[in-house]
Amino acid sequence: MKYDVTITISLKSGMLDPEARAIQHALSNLGFETGYLRTARVFEIGIESEDVSEAARKAEEMCERLLANPVIHSYSVEVKEE
Amino acid sequence: MKYDVTITISLKSGMLDPEARAIQHALSNLGFETGYLRTARVFEIGIESEDVSEAARKAEEMCERLLANPVIHSYSVEVKEE
Repeated sequence: MKYDVTITISLKSGMLDPEARAIQHALSNLGFETGYLRTARVFEIGIESEDVSEAARKAEEMCERLLANPVIHSYSVEVKEE
Repeated sequence: MKYDVTITISLKSGMLDPEARAIQHALSNLGFETGYLRTARVFEIGIESEDVSEAARKAEEMCERLLANPVIHSYSVEVKEE
């Protein structure tokens, strides 16, 4: 079966996000005041797998081994049938 | 009213995404074969606004003026009441 997997990687709460602060500052300079601003990365991946739980397991392993830094990132995985 | 706005910025279809190709290649080297891999950036922003449509309009203006490059990016905006 083919699955569409969406992986969202964000900084753990409490981690400094200097890029977010810079963007918030730039938005403020343009007249846009924001209460908070957080950034995240999304990977949409096509995975071939036996079933949904196997696809989710593969995606989690991808996060642990390459996509995320477990020290500073948290991640979520969403699996849909293609 | 305060709104939680989620802005997703991705490359327009047909645009080359060398980072995605590099990640796909690295995953392949780790034994993970992927049918496709796309990347996107997400900004979660707290916006104070009169109503939902005004919050969405502000978010779209942020995209046009700072967050996205309209030549190569497409973006979507999702607004929720805080």
